[in-house]
Amino acid sequence: MPQADTVQAIRWKNKQLQLLDQRFLPYKTVYLEFGEVNVVAEAIRDMVVRGAPAIGITAAYGIVMAARERFAESSVDWKTLIETDLQILAQSRPTAVNLFWAIEHMRGVITELQGDPEPALLAEAKKIHANDIAACQRMGELGAALIEQPCAILTHCNAGALATGGYGTALGVVRTGFAAGKITHVYADETRPWMQGARLTAWEMVQENIPVTLQVEGAAAHLMQQGKIDWVIVGSDRIAANGDVANKIGTYGLAILAKHHGVKFMVVAPASTVDMTIVHGEDIPIEQRSSEEVLSLAGQPIAAVGAAAWNPAFDVTPAALVDAIVTERGVVLAPDTEKMAAMMTNT
Amino acid sequence: MPQADTVQAIRWKNKQLQLLDQRFLPYKTVYLEFGEVNVVAEAIRDMVVRGAPAIGITAAYGIVMAARERFAESSVDWKTLIETDLQILAQSRPTAVNLFWAIEHMRGVITELQGDPEPALLAEAKKIHANDIAACQRMGELGAALIEQPCAILTHCNAGALATGGYGTALGVVRTGFAAGKITHVYADETRPWMQGARLTAWEMVQENIPVTLQVEGAAAHLMQQGKIDWVIVGSDRIAANGDVANKIGTYGLAILAKHHGVKFMVVAPASTVDMTIVHGEDIPIEQRSSEEVLSLAGQPIAAVGAAAWNPAFDVTPAALVDAIVTERGVVLAPDTEKMAAMMTNT
Repeated sequence: MPQADTVQAIRWKNKQLQLLDQRFLPYKTVYLEFGEVNVVAEAIRDMVVRGAPAIGITAAYGIVMAARERFAESSVDWKTLIETDLQILAQSRPTAVNLFWAIEHMRGVITELQGDPEPALLAEAKKIHANDIAACQRMGELGAALIEQPCAILTHCNAGALATGGYGTALGVVRTGFAAGKITHVYADETRPWMQGARLTAWEMVQENIPVTLQVEGAAAHLMQQGKIDWVIVGSDRIAANGDVANKIGTYGLAILAKHHGVKFMVVAPASTVDMTIVHGEDIPIEQRSSEEVLSLAGQPIAAVGAAAWNPAFDVTPAALVDAIVTERGVVLAPDTEKMAAMMTNT
Repeated sequence: MPQADTVQAIRWKNKQLQLLDQRFLPYKTVYLEFGEVNVVAEAIRDMVVRGAPAIGITAAYGIVMAARERFAESSVDWKTLIETDLQILAQSRPTAVNLFWAIEHMRGVITELQGDPEPALLAEAKKIHANDIAACQRMGELGAALIEQPCAILTHCNAGALATGGYGTALGVVRTGFAAGKITHVYADETRPWMQGARLTAWEMVQENIPVTLQVEGAAAHLMQQGKIDWVIVGSDRIAANGDVANKIGTYGLAILAKHHGVKFMVVAPASTVDMTIVHGEDIPIEQRSSEEVLSLAGQPIAAVGAAAWNPAFDVTPAALVDAIVTERGVVLAPDTEKMAAMMTNT
């Protein structure tokens, strides 16, 4: 198991995948144990685990279990049989590209394998997991280095330890920046409808004694108007080749508000989030989730019967509104296609 | 009782004020009956009734009851004694100026009174109420006339029948515009933390068979990016002499997003909302409400223990971001101090 000094959303124990059930945070800390890849795909869809890098890591461990079962089923045909499992995993959520990246990566390893696949695939999944933590720590340094003076920042959704292998992308920058005295306070959008800010980001910050203040999304412009923050720092679910950024619904609006107020806008995501096959952000598939997430609150209906709801889970922020994209391969300021391509060739 | 064909948030029955308890909508339709002005002030503070015009009307009826009691207490000193009640009402909420307008207006009537004050004050309260409905209907016509082609609009919070005497300001324009075929669809921000959009606006729209789609605040920019709406239409709690607009937290951000996308921005409010004594919006007092409204959801804690929350109830939109201010006295396009003053001299 890769180690980090932060909460672990994903664990491998006793030959099983364990996921911290994020639907119940911060009330309960419950790990669910998974034996079958179908159930792992359901867990991704139902948001037991969420966050683009965390979904990728989860899929990698899911493929270890799938290979174990398929190899037991047929040591001859397992590489054909496992394709069904890979496709089920790929259908769990559409926007975060890290999922597809992890599946492709593991498929590449599978192609080369001979004999019992479990040890090699488990080693590969653990490597993906460990690399993610190392990447987050590197991004934390690179992102914090962009901040010139001690300031408060605003984040949206949860791009923290819970969304990654264990350190966080946007919140990795916060962790490093707070330790360095550069980030003094975190404002967190509560992030309707799923409340990742209130339930997850606030929880992570409280655990590390980083001062955190929650607000409704509607308060972000007022916060910036009062000059309370210098940076908006967010994660991403997919970055197009030109630097357009898909992230949690609400991010695009924050980027416009930041530009209007002269607040800087930083996107922090591992290189596996960059999809060089997508030229512009408008081609990134945007997941539409159930209207029930908006029409209900804590399991109770909140809106009048007869009202419809629209529930896009992500939006796309044009590169022109982004001041910096931070990956473990480097920092791209004022991103465009050329700079993104150059960054992706770094190792 | 003034009549309107829409839901009545405020009724006068059997010599008592009755308020539709908006905290329980849309689940329950319960009218609370008030006999004492102290309890009316509490009801305003606790948001049994909310919406700037509705608060003003409620205060006027509250003053009728206060006068009845104070006159019974002392037919000589009641005009002095009632000052305590007027002050308690004035302290209930700080931002909506209609409250102070109604108190001042009723105080002016009180000064002239002789003998039993109840009949004259009740007549005045009913007149304020009836005038508000007439003003809303007039604003409905004026606002709808600004819309050039059938379109969908976005509204924030609830500036409807429930927020006024019975027709609505922003939703008055929606009612008139829908009847005229100019507004075809209403998108409604759910409006955290109090959920006026989900609970009140959606309910009003469903009752009138106006198609309504709820969204989280974070989806507004994405909605505009897709070209789905032509106008943002909102109410106001106080408008400064220069046309700066205080309204529900989140409004200022919407105005920036609208400007960015070429979507027009309309503010609809009675002339009693315009405070010519406040030069700039930055001098409008902004109510800070309890952090519990953000930290809890449906009565249950949602955030980690130890997280703080910031809960400004309103924000201020600079006049430069407003395309039109609509009052019953006329329409001000691209508002500034001179045009606002000219409009206020209309009758």
